[in-house]
Amino acid sequence: MPTKTIGDFLIQELHAHGVRHVFGVPGDYALWFYRQLDGSKLKVINTCDEQGAGFAADAYARIRGLGVVCITYCVGGLKVANTTAQAFAEKSPVVIISGAPGVKERTRNPLLHHKVRDFHVQSKVFEQLTVASAVIDNAQTACREIRRVIAAALCQKRPVYIELPRDMLATRVTATHASTKTPEPPPVAMLQEAAAETTKMINAARRPVIIAGVELHRFGLQDELLQLVDKSNIPVATTPLGKSVISERHPRYLGVYAGGMGRAQVRRFVESSDCLILLGTFMSDINLGVFTAHLEQSRTIYATSEKTSIRYHIYEHVTLSDLMHTLVTAGLRRRRAPAFPSPTAPTAFRPVSGRPVTVKRLFQRLNTFLEDDTVVVADVGDAMFAALDMTIHGRTEFLSPAYYTSLGFAVPASIGVQLANRKLRPLVLVGDGAFQMTGMELSTAVRFGLSPIVVVLNNRGYGTERPMLDGSFNDIQQWRYSLIPELIGAGHGFEVRTEDELEAAIQASGTYADSLCVLDVHLDPNDTSPALRRLTEVLGKRVRVKK
Amino acid sequence: MPTKTIGDFLIQELHAHGVRHVFGVPGDYALWFYRQLDGSKLKVINTCDEQGAGFAADAYARIRGLGVVCITYCVGGLKVANTTAQAFAEKSPVVIISGAPGVKERTRNPLLHHKVRDFHVQSKVFEQLTVASAVIDNAQTACREIRRVIAAALCQKRPVYIELPRDMLATRVTATHASTKTPEPPPVAMLQEAAAETTKMINAARRPVIIAGVELHRFGLQDELLQLVDKSNIPVATTPLGKSVISERHPRYLGVYAGGMGRAQVRRFVESSDCLILLGTFMSDINLGVFTAHLEQSRTIYATSEKTSIRYHIYEHVTLSDLMHTLVTAGLRRRRAPAFPSPTAPTAFRPVSGRPVTVKRLFQRLNTFLEDDTVVVADVGDAMFAALDMTIHGRTEFLSPAYYTSLGFAVPASIGVQLANRKLRPLVLVGDGAFQMTGMELSTAVRFGLSPIVVVLNNRGYGTERPMLDGSFNDIQQWRYSLIPELIGAGHGFEVRTEDELEAAIQASGTYADSLCVLDVHLDPNDTSPALRRLTEVLGKRVRVKK
Repeated sequence: MPTKTIGDFLIQELHAHGVRHVFGVPGDYALWFYRQLDGSKLKVINTCDEQGAGFAADAYARIRGLGVVCITYCVGGLKVANTTAQAFAEKSPVVIISGAPGVKERTRNPLLHHKVRDFHVQSKVFEQLTVASAVIDNAQTACREIRRVIAAALCQKRPVYIELPRDMLATRVTATHASTKTPEPPPVAMLQEAAAETTKMINAARRPVIIAGVELHRFGLQDELLQLVDKSNIPVATTPLGKSVISERHPRYLGVYAGGMGRAQVRRFVESSDCLILLGTFMSDINLGVFTAHLEQSRTIYATSEKTSIRYHIYEHVTLSDLMHTLVTAGLRRRRAPAFPSPTAPTAFRPVSGRPVTVKRLFQRLNTFLEDDTVVVADVGDAMFAALDMTIHGRTEFLSPAYYTSLGFAVPASIGVQLANRKLRPLVLVGDGAFQMTGMELSTAVRFGLSPIVVVLNNRGYGTERPMLDGSFNDIQQWRYSLIPELIGAGHGFEVRTEDELEAAIQASGTYADSLCVLDVHLDPNDTSPALRRLTEVLGKRVRVKK
Repeated sequence: MPTKTIGDFLIQELHAHGVRHVFGVPGDYALWFYRQLDGSKLKVINTCDEQGAGFAADAYARIRGLGVVCITYCVGGLKVANTTAQAFAEKSPVVIISGAPGVKERTRNPLLHHKVRDFHVQSKVFEQLTVASAVIDNAQTACREIRRVIAAALCQKRPVYIELPRDMLATRVTATHASTKTPEPPPVAMLQEAAAETTKMINAARRPVIIAGVELHRFGLQDELLQLVDKSNIPVATTPLGKSVISERHPRYLGVYAGGMGRAQVRRFVESSDCLILLGTFMSDINLGVFTAHLEQSRTIYATSEKTSIRYHIYEHVTLSDLMHTLVTAGLRRRRAPAFPSPTAPTAFRPVSGRPVTVKRLFQRLNTFLEDDTVVVADVGDAMFAALDMTIHGRTEFLSPAYYTSLGFAVPASIGVQLANRKLRPLVLVGDGAFQMTGMELSTAVRFGLSPIVVVLNNRGYGTERPMLDGSFNDIQQWRYSLIPELIGAGHGFEVRTEDELEAAIQASGTYADSLCVLDVHLDPNDTSPALRRLTEVLGKRVRVKK
């Protein structure tokens, strides 16, 4: 067998799993790997800051199934601790590759630059944030270790960590065919029992409903969901994190269920169902409308990537994937198309000249702007809450960190999204607070010829916090966001205060199809979406403490 | 004794140790502590991103002796992992205060937003990056724990971590007088032996030299250094990280010693000395000019905050502080004022109209601009290397992360510096690559009325990496940095390409004494300072691997 360098082997493995772009910032410990990447089939996407690379890779992974960050030791790696935590929390398979001091350089623990306490600090930090990690310090095991770690990312849909001491990169290795362990299937009898019980429970129900979660997307089960729905005519809702796992124009699509945060009709329909089928749903606070959801366990089937629960008992080894595959072939009865409160179709927007823009009217207009090639990337805050009511055309064309909720995701994420699928144009919805964290990554977008439309919800601060507890700490400095294209050398900026200005800016953004467009939309600081108003009321009660 | 809330107790303790500002970004788990801060004697400084808060607090700690970051759980905390690592590596006492889910909310491990794997992830990460940490989940021990952790920061000059579950904040506690442990002094006989040996060795030497390191500053020993130098007439050099622990206009000041990276005369003088007195010096790669330094151990006395080594033997418990206090009273003989190559005084700059600015000429001009109230804050890269040859007027008026070398430090650090001492005006030296990481924190500077002069060394990329290994990965998007004041709403911007433009911009910056000034200084991408040229040659050899 021909030998190749460890660096080239790693690149080849990533390419074989569909990776075409690597996000990061170079640094001396990673420099030679950057040179190897530069001569490879993978394209390097330099971001302004490592944080941007982390978020971009996370979004890329959500679209393509695997994302890669490559950064230097500690000063780069520790900057992506938070983005890696988000990928862990929301099941996004990202490979973190960190350059590192050479194995030989580490002898006697010298004070090399970028070292914290000792040479283990970074790998120990990433043990907390990943499902597998490897320090590639041994040529004998290098190929096996790289394959083991990448396989873990693909299997568990969570981030992994590979540390590359710089003196190992050029070491030649022979790639042997490693046996990658696939998870053990459940015992046949167990699966049969679970499938029979599930089928019986669903068939006996008068008004079952599916709540489709994000794991359906992560584990590639969206076709199965569609088959299940089409076969049985059971209506389907999603959660905030799972929004768009099914096209929101599907005739059986009910809307986003999120307890007291979602639309009232969806809530009533779901909570009064006599059979709740939860498929790959995260039972998190925000997904459940900050625990305002009432899902009666005695009527629930709940399958996740780890196990299936029916009412009060558990099938430990029956996964979401196992259950989905049996359900699409099982004897589920076909129902009559059920009556349910369909999502209201986008209504035409007639701008009133001179009228100040409100959150509600802004989203009404944006909703009519969505096309089949639009991917909505919503940052945390009212951008996300308001976006829950938008009607997404395709599958997985809504991205938002609705569980981990790290501010500053959307702009860098849009870079990952558009590189992962060049047919998509991102519509980025971002609050001004979140924008000030990572928004300058638009520089990266224009550098690589991308064309997001960025709507900055400019309400002069952390709008989601004001209803909980307000103070000057929720204010931020006012920026002229529309100047950013001029600053970074490409794109078009718009100042929007009134409905006619909004209309003009949106139409222009449609026309400038290949350019960055930045809309600075001025909003009243106290104007919020109805969803946020309901949510923050609940959150506010929770954080209130007596002095 | 009167009771107070845990939040107020923490605020009172920080105030008692000289803290007046807290840097951070609010989030719901930290919101009520923000409210408590708002009504206290500590001023909240909201940064754009948590990373900026981390760097600002580090710089604040370097000036005032203690700095504080306050952020929310995980999405905030993990964003300051890198800045905390830098504070650890370079001995800067920063208190990280993280809001967190309430103790009662954690029962049964629910999927609360911002949670990663479980509720211990963040504290485990910070165990790697701090010298002490506490989760304040028990009212009985809260006061003791807070005092223990803050004492560790002050004693070891390194970061510490305090996690505040939000339901504990308002709990009332009685502050008891805790006995804070002070470190055990060394046995008297041991200290006497070490002092006697040191004194004898120095007195016997023909041409001793002091290399003053950054620990002299961190442990408050700069007056002792001055006494020692004035008493003995021994000349003193510093290291890159220790630059400005003594005024660089002191008659016994030799210059920065950094092996092959520093000035050749300083190197020759130091390396030919028959008695090297290393006081609180980090023996790190960059401090030692990437191991090009030749300091002969058989002629060396080396005291650190942990121990003292003389030639090849060690006094385990004799610290830098112990040794300094005995040396200033010991019988060191007074020498004649020695002859040595003094640093060259700043030479007058006569701009040549139309001549493109070079790094060398830029720093020549900046050097004449320094005043007694100027603090130079240099980012990593050529900004730092070129700045090593500047002549700093006061003590500790040069800040740069010369060991850990995390890009993006300088702009947010300047905020911490100026708030820590309002008499200082920061001169920020920052490469364009570093600026694109954190430079928008200038927004925070103008929000709080600060007035840094920011010189962007615009050489279109990662200039320090080009001589090591170049490729398009070292390029960055060109920004119009001089537009930033307009974007963020205050300050003055200047485009500088020629010497006359440089002269005009610098004079204007002096005039606009209370405003932010941003100088976009266009440089040839291949133009570097002589110090960097020497360094990268050495580094390039080290990272070069054969394919």
